[in-house]
Order: sequence, then structure tokens, then C-alpha cells
Amino acid sequence: MGRKKVVIALGGNALGKDVEEQKKAVEKTAKVIVDLAQQDLDIIITHGNGPQVGMIQDAMDNLVVIQDNLKQIPLPTCVAMSQGYIGIDLQNAIKYELYKRNIDGKVSTILSQVEVDKDDPAFQNPTKPIGRFLTKEEAEINESHGVRCMEDAGRGYRVVVASPMPKRIRELETIKTLVGAGHIVITCGGGGIPVASENGKLVGVNAVIDKDNASSLLAAQLGADYLIILTAVEKVAINFGKENQEWLSDLTVEQAKQYIAEEQFAKGSMLPKVEAAIRFAESAPGRHALITLLDKASEGVAGKTGTVIHV
Amino acid sequence: MGRKKVVIALGGNALGKDVEEQKKAVEKTAKVIVDLAQQDLDIIITHGNGPQVGMIQDAMDNLVVIQDNLKQIPLPTCVAMSQGYIGIDLQNAIKYELYKRNIDGKVSTILSQVEVDKDDPAFQNPTKPIGRFLTKEEAEINESHGVRCMEDAGRGYRVVVASPMPKRIRELETIKTLVGAGHIVITCGGGGIPVASENGKLVGVNAVIDKDNASSLLAAQLGADYLIILTAVEKVAINFGKENQEWLSDLTVEQAKQYIAEEQFAKGSMLPKVEAAIRFAESAPGRHALITLLDKASEGVAGKTGTVIHV
Repeated sequence: MGRKKVVIALGGNALGKDVEEQKKAVEKTAKVIVDLAQQDLDIIITHGNGPQVGMIQDAMDNLVVIQDNLKQIPLPTCVAMSQGYIGIDLQNAIKYELYKRNIDGKVSTILSQVEVDKDDPAFQNPTKPIGRFLTKEEAEINESHGVRCMEDAGRGYRVVVASPMPKRIRELETIKTLVGAGHIVITCGGGGIPVASENGKLVGVNAVIDKDNASSLLAAQLGADYLIILTAVEKVAINFGKENQEWLSDLTVEQAKQYIAEEQFAKGSMLPKVEAAIRFAESAPGRHALITLLDKASEGVAGKTGTVIHV
Repeated sequence: MGRKKVVIALGGNALGKDVEEQKKAVEKTAKVIVDLAQQDLDIIITHGNGPQVGMIQDAMDNLVVIQDNLKQIPLPTCVAMSQGYIGIDLQNAIKYELYKRNIDGKVSTILSQVEVDKDDPAFQNPTKPIGRFLTKEEAEINESHGVRCMEDAGRGYRVVVASPMPKRIRELETIKTLVGAGHIVITCGGGGIPVASENGKLVGVNAVIDKDNASSLLAAQLGADYLIILTAVEKVAINFGKENQEWLSDLTVEQAKQYIAEEQFAKGSMLPKVEAAIRFAESAPGRHALITLLDKASEGVAGKTGTVIHV
């Protein structure tokens, strides 16, 4: 039996919202990652990019307004840029943490594309929030220009784009090669650059793929043993925020599906994480998904906290 | 003896100046790359990013003006973003060209950092032009804000940044691993993300590394057989633009150094290319550098055109 493979999906709090927050946040994230790497595990890291890709698109859209002859930068190109923006800080923080612990570890970041189906119904119904929070007035101005906005979990309005299901991790072989050579690999940033295949040609599509969905597919296709989804809560709960709230430590796929049917998990928040966890857990025998806090990842892998989802 | 390794440094005309030009330009570039790949050569591709990183920094700087609470995005982060912006189109174009020729080839793009010396004198004397051409008036406004500008080869003014010498290709092992696994690797985009090491920590520095210099170092450190610098002329000339202009097909390092002493090559244009070519040719016996047009790369490798520089 080889080393165990772990795909770690980092949430927004692992990265911060701007470039200065990011440099600080990744220091802490790197400690968590290297703690896990020291447990003799192969590590593959994915991450979100909601605030970052929104910021990049904002910047590019504004430049087009200022400079007449400049062409609009498509969203998939902005996702590619966000992989550079985030990946490099994350890679360097991990590398430095390895260095501080006297470990001669290798860390690589690859540009990664994730293929979706052009006919995915998600394109008709954009739901994925990106970028900064907007006032109601700003949202209305956007809507009047055909840019979809939506109220986001009581925190304000945000631009929303389509979030189709990932079908294929295009750089799977590259990831395998680097993991096989002992690298910690940062990949599928922001859920991957969204592309569709048109007669053998990869073409960017106007979407942002959910990073937990992409991570679940990646983990399944890599034959990973664990998928760890790091988020803002230590465990998944049912009756969340109510008197009879109950934190869950261990959840079978069957139970999880039952709770989904009962609408126990918030759309756009815990629901997609649980669904992504289920898909990975179901993909082959012995696969475990863990949902927990960034700080608790090592304890979670040791079975001491978090919510484990398994068949 | 193994397969021959070729590092190909793409110039600006291989990429175009905006996102639409880029998508078209890389189609043609991809044909050239795949022609070379079909000659049973290992291919490593580097590229410039002058117009692109300037555009990205422009966009980011403007956003900071519009949004009060946003932090300035440092230049090395903009370089990282440019690697995503350019790399993904280049990778997909090559992949599609392989597909059209029924070749099941692998292509990868990795985020790449190039280390420089923090005490490099270049930091005191910025010379590398980035971004769009400016009017004299725009340049003067920039200068009054402490942003250095310079007249660029009679074509207008541009922002200039430091261009320190590359000292170490940080992702060399990653590149070797992927080349060894049969990948065409896109790396050191824009000369690499410029970093310096501070007690084991990689820190971004305010610079853009010359892509030909970075490519020369990369080619030497990879043990490449050829360095191909693709540019806007078919051959290097002496007495360029004069009555006695002479195109050079074959140039020893010794001759090249003599011509440099005679100031035969234009600063910021052909001079750094010839210097980068010399450094590679000198790095070990049997190494050849070729300077030619994008369209002529295959003919150049076959010895039919271009300027070859060798010991």
C-alpha cells in the first residue's frame, strides 16, 4: 500500500480578501498544510477565488472603460490570473514553512482547467457569487447592464455567475506526475479555469466552478483517500441556529442524503460542501470526506473533530 | 544519448498585445512549436509579458484609485497573473494543434519564480519598459508621481522598471520532472516572477526580469542543447540600417563579443538577446543559441536560416 493521498480544499478564510490579508492568511494556512504533510501524506491543495476573481474582473472591466481600444477580458482568463495571484503566495508560504522545519519539500502550482458541459443548465441560472459585496443600488445598476446580482446570505449583494458541474480535470496527468515525484501540488485554483471542449478545442466559458465540486472530482479521479473541505465551522450541524442544533461528527452518505432531503443545509453555503463530500465518499470504497475548520484539519484527520462523511 | 532539449523564448509578436490578438497569435505560434516538437525534441517554452504585465498593473492601479480600501497589487503579483493570462491561451493553442495532428501530447504551464540578487545594481537604474506606449505628457505625469518612464526605440514613452539579472530558476526541479514525463512545459513567463530570498523566505521584488536572460539561465541549468530566441528579425545584423548592413548566419562567442564592444547591437533590443545567447553558448560545450523569426524556427534549427551563436 502506498502513501495516502489527501486533497485539501481551502476556503476563503485560508486566503484573505486582499493581497495584504492574503500574505498573512497563507502563513497560517501553510502551517496547517505542513502539519498534514508531516503525517506522511501526499498533499494536493485546491482553493477558492471568489473575492479575488471578482476583484480582478472589476479591475479589468474598469480598464476597458478607461482605455477605448482595449478588449474585455473574459472571466476564464480572470480565473487563470487568480490562480497566479493566489497560488504564488500560497506556494511560497508552504515552502517557507517547510524550510523553517528543515524539510526539503517540493511545492508546485500549475495552471489548471476544469471542463464543463456547455449545455449544463447552470448557464441558464447563475448562482455563484464573486467579487466584493455591493449595495442594493450598485446591484441594481449591474442588473440594468445585464450583469446578474443576488443577495448573499444576508451580507449584501454580489455579482453572480454560472456554476456548472465539473466533468473533467484537464491537468490530471500533470498533477499525478508531480505528486508522484513528491510535490505538494496547488491546483484547480478557484475551481479551475472553466472550459468546454468544442471539437477538440478547449474554449473558456463564462462561469466559476465551485471549488468544492472541483475538489471532489479531482480527489475521486486522483484516487485520493481523503477529501478535506476546510471552512468556517468545525462541524456540520443539523437544525443549524435553532434550539435543537446538533453538531455531527460522523455521517453516512445515506444519512447525509436524508438531511439534504429535509433541507437541513444552507444553499450556497453548507449544502454544496456536503454534496461534494457525498460524491467523493460514494466514488469508491474506503474514501472519506472531512468538513472542518482550517485550524482543526490535523485533529480532524486524526478523527478527533470535524464531520466525517463516508459510505 | 537522450532526446535533445530546446528552450524556446517567445517574443511579443508570438503573443499579441491584447486578449483577442493573443488568441489569434498563439494559433500561429502553436504551429511553430508543434513543428519543433515533431522533430523529436523536448520543448520548454518561455515568453515575454511586457504589454500584458503593464496592462494588468494599469488595471490594478486604477482599481486602487476607485476603491478606497483596496491595497496596491505589487508588480511580482502582476507578473504571476500575467503567467496565467498568457500561459493558458498558449497551452490550449499548442494542445489543439497537437490534437489536429493526431498527437497525444502533454502540455503544462507552471507558475515560475526567478530569483535575483536584492543588491543587483539594476534596482538603482530601471530600464525595462512595460505596458502600453505613452505620450510625452503622460510620461511626464508618471515621472512627477515617481514612476520612471523612458523613450522606447522611437516608438513613444513607456513605464520602466528594474531588470535585474536572474540568478536561480526556482522551479527547475518541477520543470525537469515534467519534461522527463514527456510534457511540453510553459515556464518562466515574463522572465519569471521576480523574487529574492530573505533568510529562506522568497519575497517578491519590484522588477521584471528580461525573458531572454531568464531563458538563457533556464536553458543552461536544464542542460538544454539549444536556446532559440524568437524575435522580429530573421537574423542578427551588423551595421544595422546602414549601407554596409550585413546579416550574420554564424557567429562565434568571440566574434559576438567583439561586435558588442563595437556597439553593433541596439540596447534594449538586439543587445540583450545576443548577450543572453552568448551566456548560454558559453555555459557548456556543444550548446547553440539561435536568434530568428517565429516563422523560421524550424528552418533555423535545420541550419537553413537565423543566426547561430556558439563557442
